Amino acid sequence: MSTEMRRVDVNTFSNGARYGISIGAGILENAGTWARQTLGPETRKLMIVSNRRVFGLYGESVAAGLRAAGFDVRVWLMNDGERFKSLRSCERLLRRLGEDRFSRTDAVAALGGGVVGDLAGFASAIYLRGIEFLQIPTTLLSMIDSSVGGKTGVNTEFGKNLIGAFHHPTGVLVDVAALKTLARREIVAGFCEAVKHAVLSGGEVFNMTRDFLGQHGTSNYSRRFESPDFAEDLVALIATQVGFKALIVAGDQSEETGRTDARSRKILNFGHTFGHALEKVTAFKRFKHGEAVGLGMLFAANLSKSLELLDTNQLNLLNDVVRLVGRLPDIRMIDPPAVLGSIQSDKKNIAGDVQWILLEGIGKPVIVSSKNVPEMSIRNCLDELLTNQD
Amino acid sequence: MSTEMRRVDVNTFSNGARYGISIGAGILENAGTWARQTLGPETRKLMIVSNRRVFGLYGESVAAGLRAAGFDVRVWLMNDGERFKSLRSCERLLRRLGEDRFSRTDAVAALGGGVVGDLAGFASAIYLRGIEFLQIPTTLLSMIDSSVGGKTGVNTEFGKNLIGAFHHPTGVLVDVAALKTLARREIVAGFCEAVKHAVLSGGEVFNMTRDFLGQHGTSNYSRRFESPDFAEDLVALIATQVGFKALIVAGDQSEETGRTDARSRKILNFGHTFGHALEKVTAFKRFKHGEAVGLGMLFAANLSKSLELLDTNQLNLLNDVVRLVGRLPDIRMIDPPAVLGSIQSDKKNIAGDVQWILLEGIGKPVIVSSKNVPEMSIRNCLDELLTNQD
Repeated sequence: MSTEMRRVDVNTFSNGARYGISIGAGILENAGTWARQTLGPETRKLMIVSNRRVFGLYGESVAAGLRAAGFDVRVWLMNDGERFKSLRSCERLLRRLGEDRFSRTDAVAALGGGVVGDLAGFASAIYLRGIEFLQIPTTLLSMIDSSVGGKTGVNTEFGKNLIGAFHHPTGVLVDVAALKTLARREIVAGFCEAVKHAVLSGGEVFNMTRDFLGQHGTSNYSRRFESPDFAEDLVALIATQVGFKALIVAGDQSEETGRTDARSRKILNFGHTFGHALEKVTAFKRFKHGEAVGLGMLFAANLSKSLELLDTNQLNLLNDVVRLVGRLPDIRMIDPPAVLGSIQSDKKNIAGDVQWILLEGIGKPVIVSSKNVPEMSIRNCLDELLTNQD
Repeated sequence: MSTEMRRVDVNTFSNGARYGISIGAGILENAGTWARQTLGPETRKLMIVSNRRVFGLYGESVAAGLRAAGFDVRVWLMNDGERFKSLRSCERLLRRLGEDRFSRTDAVAALGGGVVGDLAGFASAIYLRGIEFLQIPTTLLSMIDSSVGGKTGVNTEFGKNLIGAFHHPTGVLVDVAALKTLARREIVAGFCEAVKHAVLSGGEVFNMTRDFLGQHGTSNYSRRFESPDFAEDLVALIATQVGFKALIVAGDQSEETGRTDARSRKILNFGHTFGHALEKVTAFKRFKHGEAVGLGMLFAANLSKSLELLDTNQLNLLNDVVRLVGRLPDIRMIDPPAVLGSIQSDKKNIAGDVQWILLEGIGKPVIVSSKNVPEMSIRNCLDELLTNQD
C-alpha cells in the first residue's frame, strides 16, 4: 500500500517562512529521507520523543530510517495520557537533551498523538531558546488538528495548556496508515474535530468530510485499508482538513484577544465551551476531548437555533454529519447544575474563553459574548440534549 | 533631580514591531503613567516581580504609581541571586499567575537586575503562550545589557541560561537614579559590559564610555548624583550603550548559528570564553559575571595580540579603558590547568560557543574558530595574565 504524497504548506508568522505537511499512506518508511530533506545537512542529533505503545509499533523502523539518513538517534519515552503532559515530564526531557549535549543545530522528533507532540514541541521551544522539531502524528486528532498551528504546551494544576509557547515544527509527516492500529474511540474523537472544521468551513471541506463519513464510516479501519480507494480518500480528506486549519491559523497566528470576526482563530473553539464543561465535571476522565467537542457542537448548534441564529434545515445538516461519526458517550447521568456552574465559571476563564462560538449556518460561525446568551437558553438546551440523546 | 528623558527604539523580529527604552534620572516616580502608555488601556492586572532588597527600596513607590494608573497590582518576590534563577522559581511564579487568574491581557513588570528580568521575562513568555511584560532594570548591567534583546531564561544543572525563550518586553524604563544605591562592585561589573560594547563598537561608543569613566570613575555614585552634570552624562552614556546593543540585536535577532561576520550577535560574547572558564572553575561564586567578562576581555585582547591580529597601540587603548573601570578581582590563585581544561570543554559547549571573539582593532571584532587558536597561545596568554596582574 502506498499512495501519492500530498503536501500542504503552512505560513508561519515570524518571517514569512513556511513549513510543509507531507501526507501519504505508508510513508513512515521514508521518515529518514524526509527528515534529512526537511532539516538539512547540518543536523546531527535527533531525539525521538514518543510513548511506549506508539514506539513499540513504529519506533524501531522510524529510528532505523533516521539512522540511515545519518542522524545520531536518541530516544526518550514518556508515559501515555494527558496527565503526563506536565511541566515535570517536560523538565525530564529537557534534562535528557542537556545530558546528551544537544546543541542549537540538533533537533527533536515527536512520534505520537497530541500529548507527545505538545510536550516535545514545548521542550523544543524552550531548550536553548528554541531548537527545531519534527511532528510525526500517529492519531487522527493530531494529524488534522494539534500538529498544525504551532501551539505547544503542558497542563498545570490550574488549567490545561496554560503553560506553553507558539513554536512551529520544521515539518510534519502524516502517514495515514498509522490509523490502522488506532482504537475506534480515538477515530471517533478525531472525526469530531474533523466535523468541527467541516461545519466551520462549509463548502468543499464540509462536503468532503460528510461524503467520506457516509462512505467509510469510522469502524474497522484496519480492514478498510485493504481497499486501495480508502487510503486515497483518507489522504485527500486529511489534506483538505489540514488546509482549512492552516488557513485559519495563518490569518491569526497568535489568536489575538481582540478579534471577533468569523475567521479569527477563536472559531476553532466551536463546541469547546460546553465540551470543556463536560470534561471538567467528569474530572477529564469520562470523555475523550474530541468526544466532548462532538457533544459540545450539538449543544452549540441547538443554542444557535434557540437564539434564532440558525434555521432548522442547517441544524439538521449538522446533526446528520455528527451522527455519521458514530455513537458519542451517553451524557444522561451528567448533573445539569454542575455543568451549568462549570459553564458559568468558564466565563471567567483565565485563558479568556468568555465567548460562545455559535453558527448562523454551515460555514458561518459567529462569536457571541456570553453576556448576550441568556442563561435560560443554556438551561433549556441542556435539558433538551439530556432528554433527546438516544 | 530630574533630567530630560531619552528614548531608544529596539526593532523586534516578529513583525517589524518595535519597543521603546525610556531612560532618565528620577523617572521611576512616573512608572505608572509610563506603564499605562506602554501597555494601553486594556491591561488590568500587573504582577510586579522583584526581590526583597530591590522591592524594599523602590517597590512601594512603583506599586503606588501603578495603582494610580489604574492597574490591579500584585507582587511576587523571589530570592536574590543567580542560583534562584531556576525552573523551580519560575514554576512558583507561573503558579501565582494562575492562582491570581492572570489572563492574556494582563502583564508582568520586572523590577530588579538581570536575575529578576530573565526569570520574569521567561515566565511571561510561556504563561498562556506569552503575555506582555515590562522591564524596569535597577542595576547597571541590566540597564545596558540584559534588558535589551529579548533573551529570557533560567539556569539548569547542566548549564546557565539553557532553558529560555526570545520574548521582548513591551517597554523598558531605565531610571539611572537607581544606581545611587547599587553596590560599587555591581557598578564595576556593569561597566565591564559597557567597555565590552565600547570595544566592539569603537567610534562614538568607545570615546563616550572612555570619557565618562575618565571623568566620573566608578566610585561614590550616591554622592556624585549631587552634581547635575553627572545624571545627564549617565543618561547619555546609557542611551548610547543601549543603542549599540539594540543595533546588533536587530541585525541578528535569534543569534543565528551559521553567522561569523563582525556584526553577528555572537560578537557580544567577547570576553566570555575565558570569563566563563573563570566562573566555572570557581563554581560561579568568586566573580560577578561582569568582572569575569572584564578579565576575559583582557585575555582575549592579549590572545589577539599574540596571534598578530591586534597591534600594541590598540591593545594599550583597550587595557587603559579597562583600567578606568577599577580594580578587578585577583586571579593569581586560579589553577591554570583547571582554567585551560574548562576552555577546552567549552569548545564542545552545548550552547555552541565554539568560537573565540577576538579583535583586529577597537571596533573590529573577528570570530575565530577554536581550531585556529593554538593551545600554546592560550597557555602563554594565561601565564602572562597571571604574572602581570598587579
